[in-house]
Amino acid sequence: MIKITLPDGSVKEFENGSTPFDVAMSISSGLARNIISAKFNGNTVETVTPLTTDGDLVLFTFDSDEGKKAFWHSSAHVLAQAILFFHPNAKLTIGPAIDSGFYYDLDLGDETISEKDFKKIEDKFLEFARGKHQFKLREVSKADALDFYKKENNEYKVELIENLTDGDITFCDHADFTDLCRGGHIPNTGIIKAVKVMSAAGAYWRGDENNTQLTRIYGISFPKQKLLTEYLELLELAKQRDHRKLGKELEFFTFSQKVGQGLPLWLPKGTALRNRLEDFLKTAQKKAGYEMVITPHIGQKELYVTSGHYEKYGEDSFQPIKTPKMDEEFLLKPMNCPHHCEIYNHRPYSYKELPKRFAEFGTVYRYEQSGELHGMTRVRCFTQDDAHIFCTPDQLDQEFKEVIDLVLYVFGSLGFEDFTAQVSLRDPEKPEKYIGSTENWDKAEKAIINAAQEKGLNYVVETGEAAFYGPKLDFMVKDALGRSWQLGTIQVDYNLPERFELTYKGSDNAEHRPVMIHRAPFGSMERFIAVLLEHTGGNFPLWLTPDQVIILPISEKYQKYAEKVSDVLENSEIRALIDDRSEKTGRKIRDAEVKKIPYMIIVGENEEGNGTVSVRKHGEGDKGTYTIEDFISLMQEEIKSTIKQF
Amino acid sequence: MIKITLPDGSVKEFENGSTPFDVAMSISSGLARNIISAKFNGNTVETVTPLTTDGDLVLFTFDSDEGKKAFWHSSAHVLAQAILFFHPNAKLTIGPAIDSGFYYDLDLGDETISEKDFKKIEDKFLEFARGKHQFKLREVSKADALDFYKKENNEYKVELIENLTDGDITFCDHADFTDLCRGGHIPNTGIIKAVKVMSAAGAYWRGDENNTQLTRIYGISFPKQKLLTEYLELLELAKQRDHRKLGKELEFFTFSQKVGQGLPLWLPKGTALRNRLEDFLKTAQKKAGYEMVITPHIGQKELYVTSGHYEKYGEDSFQPIKTPKMDEEFLLKPMNCPHHCEIYNHRPYSYKELPKRFAEFGTVYRYEQSGELHGMTRVRCFTQDDAHIFCTPDQLDQEFKEVIDLVLYVFGSLGFEDFTAQVSLRDPEKPEKYIGSTENWDKAEKAIINAAQEKGLNYVVETGEAAFYGPKLDFMVKDALGRSWQLGTIQVDYNLPERFELTYKGSDNAEHRPVMIHRAPFGSMERFIAVLLEHTGGNFPLWLTPDQVIILPISEKYQKYAEKVSDVLENSEIRALIDDRSEKTGRKIRDAEVKKIPYMIIVGENEEGNGTVSVRKHGEGDKGTYTIEDFISLMQEEIKSTIKQF
Repeated sequence: MIKITLPDGSVKEFENGSTPFDVAMSISSGLARNIISAKFNGNTVETVTPLTTDGDLVLFTFDSDEGKKAFWHSSAHVLAQAILFFHPNAKLTIGPAIDSGFYYDLDLGDETISEKDFKKIEDKFLEFARGKHQFKLREVSKADALDFYKKENNEYKVELIENLTDGDITFCDHADFTDLCRGGHIPNTGIIKAVKVMSAAGAYWRGDENNTQLTRIYGISFPKQKLLTEYLELLELAKQRDHRKLGKELEFFTFSQKVGQGLPLWLPKGTALRNRLEDFLKTAQKKAGYEMVITPHIGQKELYVTSGHYEKYGEDSFQPIKTPKMDEEFLLKPMNCPHHCEIYNHRPYSYKELPKRFAEFGTVYRYEQSGELHGMTRVRCFTQDDAHIFCTPDQLDQEFKEVIDLVLYVFGSLGFEDFTAQVSLRDPEKPEKYIGSTENWDKAEKAIINAAQEKGLNYVVETGEAAFYGPKLDFMVKDALGRSWQLGTIQVDYNLPERFELTYKGSDNAEHRPVMIHRAPFGSMERFIAVLLEHTGGNFPLWLTPDQVIILPISEKYQKYAEKVSDVLENSEIRALIDDRSEKTGRKIRDAEVKKIPYMIIVGENEEGNGTVSVRKHGEGDKGTYTIEDFISLMQEEIKSTIKQF
Repeated sequence: MIKITLPDGSVKEFENGSTPFDVAMSISSGLARNIISAKFNGNTVETVTPLTTDGDLVLFTFDSDEGKKAFWHSSAHVLAQAILFFHPNAKLTIGPAIDSGFYYDLDLGDETISEKDFKKIEDKFLEFARGKHQFKLREVSKADALDFYKKENNEYKVELIENLTDGDITFCDHADFTDLCRGGHIPNTGIIKAVKVMSAAGAYWRGDENNTQLTRIYGISFPKQKLLTEYLELLELAKQRDHRKLGKELEFFTFSQKVGQGLPLWLPKGTALRNRLEDFLKTAQKKAGYEMVITPHIGQKELYVTSGHYEKYGEDSFQPIKTPKMDEEFLLKPMNCPHHCEIYNHRPYSYKELPKRFAEFGTVYRYEQSGELHGMTRVRCFTQDDAHIFCTPDQLDQEFKEVIDLVLYVFGSLGFEDFTAQVSLRDPEKPEKYIGSTENWDKAEKAIINAAQEKGLNYVVETGEAAFYGPKLDFMVKDALGRSWQLGTIQVDYNLPERFELTYKGSDNAEHRPVMIHRAPFGSMERFIAVLLEHTGGNFPLWLTPDQVIILPISEKYQKYAEKVSDVLENSEIRALIDDRSEKTGRKIRDAEVKKIPYMIIVGENEEGNGTVSVRKHGEGDKGTYTIEDFISLMQEEIKSTIKQF
């Protein structure tokens, strides 16, 4: 008999040689049906691997990341099997699971696979899957493994095996298909009910452009057809909501080859929206006792040597800016904190004056490889909604809570309801890795955890994930399509106050070091607006949306009245535009719907005569006739309801 | 007889050998008394120089720049005479007139002159001046001149003379003093009624640090004692109002050695004021149809090669920013226009969509030698209140007028009442120097002059002063101390639309080039706020001032009530702070006066009981008791009265 410990701590006895599947069956047949992978004593095992010692067992279904990994890894085998059916001379290389599905890289020789072939590969895949073939792992000697692939003329697998050691080499068989494989499979191919070949692309063997170019086939598979359908719908939605596409359609931003890659140009509508977001945060920050500052976008190299950023960013980033006399060197700022430290340093402080909270929408510059650039989420120039709080160690607790309040207010006002937090603490076994006294670290970590608990955050603690300069709290936000984005961050810093020799005079009349908090609720304006675009699909909260109202005169005759209405709205700070094209009203309404403008106002003879407006709401249709004054009240009330007071 | 033409065009006949003084006498004895210098046929002459040919004569009094130059140049002779009295072995070098006064550089050997010696030098100066000695210019041969100074062992004058040619060498005598001199003197020393030795400093012979260090004595002189008194008072006032001093006292900005020279750090109070100024302009610009954009602070080198800025700024400015892969080079932007051209270029336009007006508070970077940096008026990083208007040639006239309206609105709202404009046109004789068609230039120049006339500007036309890319209009503003500052500018540009190949589709369906207007009413935020500080001495208009109200609780007991009042004011968008120090109320009032806070509110038992406030106004004293509501109305009304609507 062997003792198996389950994740809930319970211990059960089983006959020696029982499999994870047997353990699942002992819990419930439902679980056994869904279990597709397992980990025994920390190692991935098959559901049919006989367990021969005591140990910890974790069972996985498709819902878990581990389960998906096994599912997709197994699917890669079946994909290769299906491709070999059509291309018997193809040489297999590697076929791993990835975040969304899997791929297989093959050397097709002179043959090719393109979109028109996907359907037949999928069909063959499903035909094989329906065979309910078991995945069977077997150990092979290095000599036998090399022999096998040499016979197949597969130089790739030979190269892979040559780098492995005897005793570590396993083959996996299912049906008549064999592959070099480390294991971690689902019980049998029958579980795979749906598959989609997503794309074919070129890929160099081992990622080296000097090597042969292979064909990479991407696929994704699911245990239910419905899950595939949902996935493809989500994908289509994500494509429609791609911020690069929406940003162009809504004329928010553009890029210019001449200005440079990754350097966004904000167009009027994007600038207006960004300014509204900035003003929104400014108003809240003012109430929270922040003071705005402005600092240059460069600093002497010396500044970043002091801060340590030169050591960190120096070589991989934008290089130093030299001057004609060569006696000074400057760097584009990768962060605002060194400048804010120097602002703090411009005069002495008493403890009574702390905390000082310096905020700046500071544009920073970081060099990213051109291949890594992506729309507004990965740029070379971005504006942080940055602030640095300089406080006494005793104030940390309260300050941290107030920052969380601010972050939650921001997320709430922008419609991000679903988020988690990650608390990153130091590794208590490696105190030498961190700067700052143990006492202060204890204080700070306790402050963060207390604050997270008190504010009811859904958080996980990651020990050993703190930066060397202090613990931190990151916010992961889920968007409407279920994708996670890291947005806001709050970090404690003992390092910069030390490096910049910041001080305050304590109640004991002695000089002390303040603690610093870095924080950015948005993270960066570029990335946040990109995420907001994809989250809302361009349907912004009314207070934020670029154009709140579009006025549609039913003919040129009512252009004057339309302008009058526009002026009145503008005086009440309602953003309106006029569609003065000589199109039919029906067409104007349809175009306004496409543009996602929340309110349409139709004006004609009746409206001009009575001083009224006919109102339509985006996606809802006719709302009846209002006097202009009543319409303004309606708008103002709805705007107010979409933005909370901090 | 000779014919003398005067500046008004009138021609008079005089006997051959008449002097400028004689001509002045023929006009009026008052003029003759005040005339101190003259120009004949474009050359400076003495008032006693006999005129022997027909020619144009201009007579100068002290009020003109030419008059001051002669006055101060002559004074330098007397200063040298006075110094020689005390230091007979001093060797004279050069002694020119400067913008404010004059100096003389001397080699004093082992002797020194310091502040304690100034009084006796001034007394001796005035004693000599009272002798009414005439300045007499005489031609000397090079040999005689060298002989004279060799005897005096004056190697400096010898070196100067060696570089002159025979026939061009004149000596000037007055009393027993002789100097090598090109001429341009007042009639006699008696006109100089007041003198002040300002300072003594070191200066290298010929400005070369490898040469002997000389002693430079600065002085200033006037034809009336009253003028000197006024000058010294103004100087004292200017010192008190120096924006570097006020900026520090009011905590507006600071500089850090670590961040770098000429790179301002805006402190909270300065940032708040700057943001108010920016918001003020943004509001007006929105009404005027501008759209805000945001662009990065760098661009590819290629961008500035296209714009021509690289050729202009390249070598003398911040050097290109290289990247780790060395395949891209970027430059800090010296101007925002190339970026705005690329924004214009992001899509095609129809003539119906023009003008497009893109505005940005864009921070630009220009390398200035460290010796040329000066507070906030000469920095390496400044933020232009920039905008670029893209319009059709036909729209230029109207656009230009509207820009002038905006500039006048800005000046009016900030208390600059006294300004002139300079219209810079092309040199019609050198059409090859300019880009753009003659027809367009004619149109643009006419547009500017029309606009300047129609708007009633006090302007001068400078032919040949236009940039190669277009004519322009600059505004020179006089501050409260009578000093002139170049602030706003409006420039027409035919060049960049050409270089960036900007187009719009005309009503003829063909592609046309738009015209571009660059304009910045403030010029730069840094410079403008510096000038505003010196103009107002820190007493800003109520709408703009950092703290509008200071609340003075008469003891700690009324701190709570003070906070309540502060909250109510803040909710009405009135900026208030509380002086919660445990100082006597008298002291708090005095400190608030020094801080130039416009309103003081004193709260104690009566006020708390009645829900009122006791009001004092800066510089005016007690204003009586108000309910909080009435005080808010008073404030709001006064704020409104200090800012006009655009």
